Amino acid sequence: MSPEIIDYSGFGFRVTATDKHTRARLGHLTTPHGHLITPAFIFCATKAAIRAASPRDLKSANVEMILANTYHLLVQPGPDLVAKAGGLHKFMGWDGPLLTDSGGFQIFSLGSGVSSSEIKSNRSGSGNVRTNKLLLKLDEEGAVFRSPKDGAKHKLTPESVINIQRQLGPDIAVVLDECTPVNVERKYTEKSLNLTHRWAKRSLAEFDRYHDGTQALYGVVQGGVYQDLRREGAEFIASLPFFGQAVGGCLGEHKEAMYEIIEYSMGPLSAASRARPTHLLGIGGVRDIWEGVGMGIDTFDCVTPTRIARHGWALKKTAEKFRINIRNARFREDQRPLESDCSCYTCMNFSRSYIHHLLKANEILGLQLLTQHNIAFMNRLMEAVRTSISQGKFLEVKKEWLRK
Amino acid sequence: MSPEIIDYSGFGFRVTATDKHTRARLGHLTTPHGHLITPAFIFCATKAAIRAASPRDLKSANVEMILANTYHLLVQPGPDLVAKAGGLHKFMGWDGPLLTDSGGFQIFSLGSGVSSSEIKSNRSGSGNVRTNKLLLKLDEEGAVFRSPKDGAKHKLTPESVINIQRQLGPDIAVVLDECTPVNVERKYTEKSLNLTHRWAKRSLAEFDRYHDGTQALYGVVQGGVYQDLRREGAEFIASLPFFGQAVGGCLGEHKEAMYEIIEYSMGPLSAASRARPTHLLGIGGVRDIWEGVGMGIDTFDCVTPTRIARHGWALKKTAEKFRINIRNARFREDQRPLESDCSCYTCMNFSRSYIHHLLKANEILGLQLLTQHNIAFMNRLMEAVRTSISQGKFLEVKKEWLRK
Repeated sequence: MSPEIIDYSGFGFRVTATDKHTRARLGHLTTPHGHLITPAFIFCATKAAIRAASPRDLKSANVEMILANTYHLLVQPGPDLVAKAGGLHKFMGWDGPLLTDSGGFQIFSLGSGVSSSEIKSNRSGSGNVRTNKLLLKLDEEGAVFRSPKDGAKHKLTPESVINIQRQLGPDIAVVLDECTPVNVERKYTEKSLNLTHRWAKRSLAEFDRYHDGTQALYGVVQGGVYQDLRREGAEFIASLPFFGQAVGGCLGEHKEAMYEIIEYSMGPLSAASRARPTHLLGIGGVRDIWEGVGMGIDTFDCVTPTRIARHGWALKKTAEKFRINIRNARFREDQRPLESDCSCYTCMNFSRSYIHHLLKANEILGLQLLTQHNIAFMNRLMEAVRTSISQGKFLEVKKEWLRK
Repeated sequence: MSPEIIDYSGFGFRVTATDKHTRARLGHLTTPHGHLITPAFIFCATKAAIRAASPRDLKSANVEMILANTYHLLVQPGPDLVAKAGGLHKFMGWDGPLLTDSGGFQIFSLGSGVSSSEIKSNRSGSGNVRTNKLLLKLDEEGAVFRSPKDGAKHKLTPESVINIQRQLGPDIAVVLDECTPVNVERKYTEKSLNLTHRWAKRSLAEFDRYHDGTQALYGVVQGGVYQDLRREGAEFIASLPFFGQAVGGCLGEHKEAMYEIIEYSMGPLSAASRARPTHLLGIGGVRDIWEGVGMGIDTFDCVTPTRIARHGWALKKTAEKFRINIRNARFREDQRPLESDCSCYTCMNFSRSYIHHLLKANEILGLQLLTQHNIAFMNRLMEAVRTSISQGKFLEVKKEWLRK
C-alpha cells in the first residue's frame, strides 16, 4: 500500500521569490546536510567522486550539492561497502547535501541497443528498448541487466532501488522509473508510463516502511514526447507524497523539442505541486538552465561542465556555445585568465597559456584547473540566475546571457 | 674568463646545527622567494607542474621548494614563452623557492642507447654514451640532440643553459654537465669529467655576465664510480664561486655502491666547502635520504613520491619498502586512513577503502589523493630528519625509521 502522507520534517522547501513574467522562482531547500538557495546546479559525482576535483576543491568553487548514481555504485563498489563505511557522505568526504539518481536512465541506456544520446535525443537508434543487449529482462517486478563492467547479473526493482539508496545514505533519493528513448511509439510509451507509476507507488511504500527522517524521496515524471502523457505523468507524481520530483526520460530530438517536453511536464506540475522542488535530470547547458528556470525548474545536473574540462574546454560566458578549447594554438601565448571576470582559483592564479601548456604536456593539473573553473562558472551562472530573479530582471538577464 | 667571486647577497645558507656522529646538519637556506630549513625535499615539477597537485595542494602538504627541468621546458613550451609570462614562478603560480635542473641528465639519457636507469644503475646497457641515438653530437662546445617529442634539433651549450635558466627565472640554476652512465670506463669518465669542469667555468663566466642578484648557481660534481675522480670533481667544484653544488651522474649499480659514490663526493666537499648547500640529484628513497643526510646532503629531489602515487602506491612508514599498493584487494573494505598518524588532507578525510574504489573506478581523484599523501609523507620524513638532528638523535631516529 502506498502511503498517503510522508513526514519530511527534516527537510524543507520554501519559495521565497517568484518572477512576474515566468515561472522562475527562488527557493530555499533544506536537507539534513545543509541548505541551498535554488535555482542551483547539482554536480555529478557519478561514482562517488567528481572527476579531478576533491571535496576541498568543490568548496572553494562554491559547490553546494552533488549527485551520485545508484546504478554505478551498485556495480562498483556496491552498496554494502558504502554502508559499512557509514554512507556516501562519510565514504567520499562530502558533508553537504547529496542526491542519488536511481539508475533508471543508466539501465535503459545500457549496451549497444540504446545509447544515452538516443534517450536524450533522436539522432539514431531502433526505437525499441528491447534491443538493449545488456537489459536482460524488464517486467512488472523490475529490470535484470548485465553489468557492462564485469558481466555480472544485477536485478533492480523499485523496492531494491529504495533500499540500495537507504544503504548509500544520500539526503535525497529518486525512484526507479522506466526511461524510454525519444523515438518510442506512443503505445509503448503509455504502457511504460503506467509501469513507472505502479513502480512509483511501490517505491513510496518501501520508502515509508523504513523512513526515519534522514532521507526524502523524489518521483520522476515520464511520458515521452507526448503532451497528454507528460501531463498524466506530472499530475500522477504530484498526487503522491513525494518530497519533490524530477523531470526525466526522453527530452526530444533537439533543443526546441526538449523545451516543449519540459513545458508539457512543468505546466501541470506548476498547477499541481508548486511547493515541491523540481529537478531536471541530466540537462544543464547554459541555455537549458535559463529556459528551464523560466519554466519552474529548481535544480539541474549534468556531467558536461566537468567532462568537457577533461577535453580541454573552458566554459566562458562570452564565447560561442559558451566554451573555448584551451588546446587551441591561439591560446599558446595568451597571458589572460580563462575569463577576466572570474574569481575562481584557476582564473586568479593561472593563464590560458599555462593551461594550454599543461594540456599539451598531458599534465593532469590541466584537467584539474579546467574542472575547477568550469564548476565555478556554473555556480556563477546560477548566482546570476538567482540574482536576476531577486531583482525582478530574470528575462532581461536571460536575454543578456543568451544573446550571441 | 671564469670569475673568482660572485656576489650572492640575495641568497644565504647558514648551518645552524650539526650532528656529533655524522655529517648530518641543519641549515637555513634563503632565496628571493623565501627560505627553508634543510635537510629538505624538493618536489619535481618537471614540466612546470607537479603531477596531479596544484600549488594550493602543495602548500597544504607543506611543500617548501620545487624543481623544474630546463631540458623539458626547452622542448615544451620553450623558454621564450615562459619569459614572456614573467618567468616560471608567475607562469606556474608558485611563489616559493624554485630550482631548475640543467637538463644534462636528460640529454644524456635520451633515446634508446642509454636509459635513465642505466645512468642511475648498471642493470643493462652498452656503457657507451655514443649509442644514445637522440644525442647527435657531443663536443667541446656543447651537445646537439633531437627532441623525442617532435624530432626537432636542439643545441645546448654551457652558456645557452645558463641563459635559458635566466629566461625561466628559478631562484637556483644548475650548470650543464656531461652525465656519464655507471658502466663507462675510467678513461672516458676522466675525459668527461674534464669537459664538465671546463663547462663549469664557462657557465660561471656566462652567469656572471648578466648576474643581477635574482639567481644563484650550483655546480655539479661528477666523476663516475671512481673515488679519485669524484674527489677531483668535488674539489674542483668547491674551488669555484658557486653558491652551492649538486652531486650528480652515475651513482653505482646498487644502493651500497651508490652510498659509496656519494661518500666519495661528500668527503672532499665537506672538507672544502661545508658552508655551501649540497643537493643530491634525482635520489630520494627513504633510506637514501637518511644515508645522504648522514653524509652531509642538504636537499634531495626525486619523482618517485608523485610517480608511484599514479600507480596506486601510498608511502607508509611502517610498510615494507615504505609503500603499500592501494589497488590491492585487501584494502577494499579497509576503513582506516592511509597512515594512522598522518595529518595530511587525504588521511584526515578519506579511507583506504574509498581510495581503492577511486583507483578501481579510474577516478583521477584517486591519484590526486595519493599524490597529496605521498608529498605530505616526504615532508613528514624530512621533519623527522630535522628534529632528530636538532635533538641530537640522528642515528637513533635513523635506525628507528630503517629497522624493518
